Amino acid sequence: MSSEVNSAKVSLGGLHAFCVKALEKCGVSESNADITAAALVTTDSWGVHTHGCGLLPKYVKRLRAGGIRADATPAVVAEEGAWALVDGGAGLGQVTSTFAMRLAVEKARSAGLCYVGVRNNCHFGAAGYYAWLASQENMVGIAMANDTPTVAAPGSRKAITGSNPIAYAVPAGDRDPILLDIAISTVSGGKVYKAHRMGNPIPDGWLVGPDGLPTTDPEGFPHNKALTPMAGYKGYGLALLIETLSAAITGAALTWQVKNWIFDDPSQPTHHGAAFLVFNVASFSPLEDFFHRVGALIDEIHQSPTADGQRIFLPGEMEWEKRRRAQSEGLTLPPDIAVGLKGLAEELKIDTQGLL
Amino acid sequence: MSSEVNSAKVSLGGLHAFCVKALEKCGVSESNADITAAALVTTDSWGVHTHGCGLLPKYVKRLRAGGIRADATPAVVAEEGAWALVDGGAGLGQVTSTFAMRLAVEKARSAGLCYVGVRNNCHFGAAGYYAWLASQENMVGIAMANDTPTVAAPGSRKAITGSNPIAYAVPAGDRDPILLDIAISTVSGGKVYKAHRMGNPIPDGWLVGPDGLPTTDPEGFPHNKALTPMAGYKGYGLALLIETLSAAITGAALTWQVKNWIFDDPSQPTHHGAAFLVFNVASFSPLEDFFHRVGALIDEIHQSPTADGQRIFLPGEMEWEKRRRAQSEGLTLPPDIAVGLKGLAEELKIDTQGLL
Repeated sequence: MSSEVNSAKVSLGGLHAFCVKALEKCGVSESNADITAAALVTTDSWGVHTHGCGLLPKYVKRLRAGGIRADATPAVVAEEGAWALVDGGAGLGQVTSTFAMRLAVEKARSAGLCYVGVRNNCHFGAAGYYAWLASQENMVGIAMANDTPTVAAPGSRKAITGSNPIAYAVPAGDRDPILLDIAISTVSGGKVYKAHRMGNPIPDGWLVGPDGLPTTDPEGFPHNKALTPMAGYKGYGLALLIETLSAAITGAALTWQVKNWIFDDPSQPTHHGAAFLVFNVASFSPLEDFFHRVGALIDEIHQSPTADGQRIFLPGEMEWEKRRRAQSEGLTLPPDIAVGLKGLAEELKIDTQGLL
Repeated sequence: MSSEVNSAKVSLGGLHAFCVKALEKCGVSESNADITAAALVTTDSWGVHTHGCGLLPKYVKRLRAGGIRADATPAVVAEEGAWALVDGGAGLGQVTSTFAMRLAVEKARSAGLCYVGVRNNCHFGAAGYYAWLASQENMVGIAMANDTPTVAAPGSRKAITGSNPIAYAVPAGDRDPILLDIAISTVSGGKVYKAHRMGNPIPDGWLVGPDGLPTTDPEGFPHNKALTPMAGYKGYGLALLIETLSAAITGAALTWQVKNWIFDDPSQPTHHGAAFLVFNVASFSPLEDFFHRVGALIDEIHQSPTADGQRIFLPGEMEWEKRRRAQSEGLTLPPDIAVGLKGLAEELKIDTQGLL
C-alpha cells in the first residue's frame, strides 16, 4: 500500500472534496468545511505540506473531542470603522481567520486600512493563506498569530514565545503577488521532528537544550528543548510584537496560557490569538501606479546579477510555480501525509474513490 | 585633546542645547531644531550612538548643501479618518517623522489605529524613537523606513534592499515600554565600518562579496559588497514588506532610486520613504487590563529560568537602564563622536562651554 500511496497523484479538486467530506463527518457545516478545505489545499498547492491537509487528522481529533467546536460561529465583539475584535468561539482556525480577514478587507474598502484582532481562535494553518485573501482584492494583507511557546529567548533555558507566524501578500497586477510566510524561529519545529524521525542530528543553532545551551540532538523537543529565535534577539523581539497584536490587544491567551493544539487535552479550547491587517492600495494612490511601482521592483530584483548558479526569487515565487504545476498536473502528497489521510478516510468511512 | 575628549561626560541637556544651536546655525527653526535634538539625544541616551548626535555633522553637511531643506514643512497630501500621506519636502527626517508619528497618534485616538505613510523624507535616525513617541501616549507604535540598498537577497551579487529598519514600542503602564529597533540585515553596516577601521576581519555570514559569496574582508563595503539579510530569505522578505508600506504605497523612491544620504550629492534630496502605524490600546480594551496582561508577560519572561550566567532582557530593557544612568550621571560619548562634535562646533563657531 505504501508504494501505491507514494506514487499516487491527487487533483486539487479531489483533495478539496475529501477535506470537505471529512469535516462534514465531524459536524462542520458544508460552507465552513469548504472554507477550511480551501485554506488547506491552497497551502498544499504551494508545496507547504506541513500546513496543508496533513493537519486534518489532528483537527479531526480535536473536533471529535470538542476542543474545536464544529458548530462555532465567529462573532464580532467590538468594532469601529477601521477595526474589529472577533471571538472565534473555539471554532476551526481557518473558519474564524477567513471570516476575520474578509471582514478586514470589507472594512478597509472604505476605511483605507483595517485591523481585525481575534481571540478564542485555534491553530489557523498557514498565515500566508489569509494574507493572499487580501491581495486577491488588491490590498496588502498581513496575518499573524501567537502559539504555545516553543521558541527560546536569548539566554533562556526554555521556550518563551510561540513560533508566532507572520505573513504578508502584496498584489502586483497581472503578476503573482509577493507572498512571504515565516515563523520567527530559525527553523520550524517540523524540521526538528523530521530529523528526529530519520535519526539525524541537527545543525548547531536550531535548538537549545534544557541548560539553555545549543544542542544538535533533536530528542526531547518540544518538551524540554526549545527552538532558537531567527536572528537571535531580533526574532524574539518580533515574536513579542506579534504576541501584542494577536493576544495582548485582543484578549486571547498569552504565551504559556495558549494550549498546545497537538498535545494538550483535545476536549478543551486552545485560546489562540491572531491579527489581520489590511491596506487598501486604491485608497492611497491609483491602483495602476502601485502596480507599476511594484512591477518595476520585481523586474529590478529579477534582473539583478546573481551568484554563479543562483536565482533570486521574489518571496512566494517558488510557491506560485508549484501551485501552477499542482493545478495542471495534480499533487503528489508526501507519503506520511497520504498515509494519514487514507487512515482518516477509513476512520470516518469516506469513500476516497476518485478523490485520493 | 583626544584624552580630554575621551574622559568628558556630557549632560543630556547640554548635548541637546548643542544640537539645537548647531541646527539653528544651518537655518533650522528653533522648534524643528528642538524636535531633531530630542530624537538624537534620546537615541544616545539609549546607548545607540550610531543613530544619535554622531549623525549631526553629516546632517549639517546636507543642510548646508541644500539636499536637506532647512526650512521644509511637512505637508499632509491626503488623509482620511485612519490614515494620512505626508510629503516631507526633503526636510530633516526627524522633523518629518516626528510630525508623522504625532499625526498618527492624534488620528488613532478616534480611529483606534492609524497609518501615516511618508514620502520625500531623509534619513530619520533611530526608528525606535518614533515608536516610543506613540507608547508615551499609551499606544502601540510601529515605525519603519526604506533606504538605499546595502543588503543582498539570497543568491544576489549585490544589494537588493536597504537595511530597512523596523521598530515598535508597547506601553506597559508604570513599567518601561517594550521597545525593539532592528535593521533587517544580519548586522548593521556600522559594525562592518568599525571592523574595517580597526583592521579586523569580520565573521563569516555578515557580508557577501561582488561574486555573491560570503567574505570575511570588510574592505569595499558598501560599494561592491553587501550585508546579508537577517535569517536569510526571512529578512529579505520583511525588507520588501517595509519597502511596500514605506515607499510603494507612499510614492517615495524605491530601493536604488533612494539616494545614499552619506555618499550621494549633498545638494539633492534623498527621497526616502517611511511608515508609521499606531494602535490606540484604549480603543480595544480598558487600558488597565492591557497593562495587567503586558505586565504579567514581562514578569513571566523575567522569572523564566536562564542559562548559567545569563539574563533574559525584554526588548529595550538594556536601553532603558542606560538611559536612566545617562539621565543621572551624564553620557560618555564614544571618542570619534566627541571629536566629530568638537569639529562641528569649531566649523559652526559654537561656544561649547558648559555643553560638551
